[in-house]
Amino acid sequence: MGNLARKVAIIGAGMNKFGRNFPQKRNPDMWIDAWLEAVKSVDNGIEPKDIDACYVGNYSSDLFNHQGHLGPQMANLVGLTPKPAPRFEGACASSGIALRQAIIAVASGIHDVIAVAGMECMNELPTALVTDTLATASDSLFEYTAGATFPGLYATIATAHFKKYGTTPEDLMRVGIKNHKNGAENPYAQMQQTIKQIMEKKISRLTKEGKPAPDWKDEFDFLKSSSNPMIAFPLRLFDCSLVTDGAACVFVASADVAKKFTDTPIWIAGTGQGSAALSLHDRDELTSFIATREAARQAYKMAGMEPKDIQMAEVHDCFTIAEILAMEDLGFYEKGKAVEAIRNGETKRDGTLPINTSGGLKSKGHPVGATGVAQAVEIFKQMRGVAERNRQVKFDVERALTHNLGGSGGTCVVTIYKK
Amino acid sequence: MGNLARKVAIIGAGMNKFGRNFPQKRNPDMWIDAWLEAVKSVDNGIEPKDIDACYVGNYSSDLFNHQGHLGPQMANLVGLTPKPAPRFEGACASSGIALRQAIIAVASGIHDVIAVAGMECMNELPTALVTDTLATASDSLFEYTAGATFPGLYATIATAHFKKYGTTPEDLMRVGIKNHKNGAENPYAQMQQTIKQIMEKKISRLTKEGKPAPDWKDEFDFLKSSSNPMIAFPLRLFDCSLVTDGAACVFVASADVAKKFTDTPIWIAGTGQGSAALSLHDRDELTSFIATREAARQAYKMAGMEPKDIQMAEVHDCFTIAEILAMEDLGFYEKGKAVEAIRNGETKRDGTLPINTSGGLKSKGHPVGATGVAQAVEIFKQMRGVAERNRQVKFDVERALTHNLGGSGGTCVVTIYKK
Repeated sequence: MGNLARKVAIIGAGMNKFGRNFPQKRNPDMWIDAWLEAVKSVDNGIEPKDIDACYVGNYSSDLFNHQGHLGPQMANLVGLTPKPAPRFEGACASSGIALRQAIIAVASGIHDVIAVAGMECMNELPTALVTDTLATASDSLFEYTAGATFPGLYATIATAHFKKYGTTPEDLMRVGIKNHKNGAENPYAQMQQTIKQIMEKKISRLTKEGKPAPDWKDEFDFLKSSSNPMIAFPLRLFDCSLVTDGAACVFVASADVAKKFTDTPIWIAGTGQGSAALSLHDRDELTSFIATREAARQAYKMAGMEPKDIQMAEVHDCFTIAEILAMEDLGFYEKGKAVEAIRNGETKRDGTLPINTSGGLKSKGHPVGATGVAQAVEIFKQMRGVAERNRQVKFDVERALTHNLGGSGGTCVVTIYKK
Repeated sequence: MGNLARKVAIIGAGMNKFGRNFPQKRNPDMWIDAWLEAVKSVDNGIEPKDIDACYVGNYSSDLFNHQGHLGPQMANLVGLTPKPAPRFEGACASSGIALRQAIIAVASGIHDVIAVAGMECMNELPTALVTDTLATASDSLFEYTAGATFPGLYATIATAHFKKYGTTPEDLMRVGIKNHKNGAENPYAQMQQTIKQIMEKKISRLTKEGKPAPDWKDEFDFLKSSSNPMIAFPLRLFDCSLVTDGAACVFVASADVAKKFTDTPIWIAGTGQGSAALSLHDRDELTSFIATREAARQAYKMAGMEPKDIQMAEVHDCFTIAEILAMEDLGFYEKGKAVEAIRNGETKRDGTLPINTSGGLKSKGHPVGATGVAQAVEIFKQMRGVAERNRQVKFDVERALTHNLGGSGGTCVVTIYKK
């Protein structure tokens, strides 16, 4: 148990421009955009006849769009009928699961090439119902009915982390500032502005309106002001990821078949998945996710790697505190030590361990069912050295990791990539 | 491509009593019932420590129960935290997909033993909303918004079959009469009565009330009367499957590990999955499902078998016409010839090719996300020779098949079993 019978690689990857795409674009339209971007990225070209199956990750088109049974619909749009088209769900880790199951299926010998999709069209619902729909990924009996939603649950986790390790609101802000800076360089990100730019725009607008300019020396002053309202203490607006419509696509292939498509496949070195009780009250601790630790353990073991071998990562920053937990649970830093690294700038794009060069969920956006595959798209680009604008990391990426979380840590999928 | 790297077997299987279990039992309770039944069926016993992952098939707990993210919740209830717990969806083929992906995962080498779950708790919604929720498995743009629901879509298919092949309402009734007879012998079935018994009760009730006894010579007279109201011509009430709460569980294992648990594993000989455009208007024909033909082609090829090798089958009779289509699309009979076999009684429990000895979706019930795994439970029991009451088939079952359909044929999963 624990090892794959065949080697598996990613041979192509792409995503649509994340943002508020509804009503101009819904899942079918965004999926086709992502598909075409992924097709373009395959060196020797790829056609539907080359592909054996379509694996679709999506959290809840049922509640967001009153459309279930997405798999065959998406397969049909890109010419893959009558091939297998299952859908996979694990809350916000849905397409991380789709990717993992595609890797497993190629390894099993049943398929050689699989198109892996991730998508979510969230803006069809008004924001209050988005929050309600996302809350169905918590425990409907013990959490949802008690009035908990995810900002509240992650706020609980943040305050516990503050108490145990001395983490501060400024540390959370540093995560947001970094990720916005990365997202501003990503043409596919929902947010195209740094927090400093957002602040300066605000000042300029107030000045134009003849109002007194706020006394903000830097982004931290702005983020502590009423312009960044408290959502659930200590999480403010800019600690929360976005409501996003988006889709992403990667093609995975077996080793021998991958060679037909490209000379530079990105290899899957390891995959792991973990789970936990949905409810926070049912966990042993609030400041660490057992699902992440277990998924990472499996993935490192399969890859024959340790945390120190990873050169860059996309982690699941649905809230800023979640990036800090991930950095620790993945073993990059000891518990309580991640904030030191953040303060030192180690996880910036030019740091020793760049994290969320895409902008992360915070700035690239978080169309929940698309996020897992979109993380793989970013790693693919960075490892190929083709990341857009000014965000390509300055070293050759040989080994990277993605971390995709569902709910408040009920599901986690970790994938390790190598050249 | 197309073959599995390792042999896979089913080593245990069980289900709860299907029926209107809500509000006494919801998904968590029914899943534990099914799990315990499956555990009991493993010859040498099985414990959570023996199991590597929990694969959950479910159509839409999102809409039925306002609870997503079922995988980790179900895994946690049976002591499987922090192991991988993905959820799989393909409308009414959701747990057929979960079973297929578990087979693939064991074959890949990543897991040795997987608990496969299927579940749906439908009665939490009033019937009109159940119909609406199920309709989200059709095309929400072209079918749902035009007012189509599944009884209407299958009625369209039935009338097309009538026109092309001379099939009659009585042929549909024969399917229902047979399946009710089988279900009456299945202690886990929702309906525990034959149609004759239902008719006789009705006569007796009318007589007690001093009303004139209806002039019904046999079940057909009853089924043609207003006691069997028309739902969507030509489908009447007794042509439709049931609204059911239920859960089912099977354990799959790799060949070498299976031996630890039992001397008589049921082997997976083949698995196939197909897809089609969701909308009927987007298909080449109405009287045959391309997804079924493709899934069957793959499964037969992997098994090295032909339709004539199959000795019994559970097929997806969500409507009586669907059983007829399945008999033909699976290659058991030529197109248009299935009804002859039905008229001759070939598919009865004591016929040459027993179909739906469990009672099928028509009488055992159709908790949509549980159905795929529940079909495997029936085959497991029949191949082991332990089917309850009077419904064990009279020959030694060496090779059998399950056919699990999603929507109006948008997804199909076919599994072939051998001893």
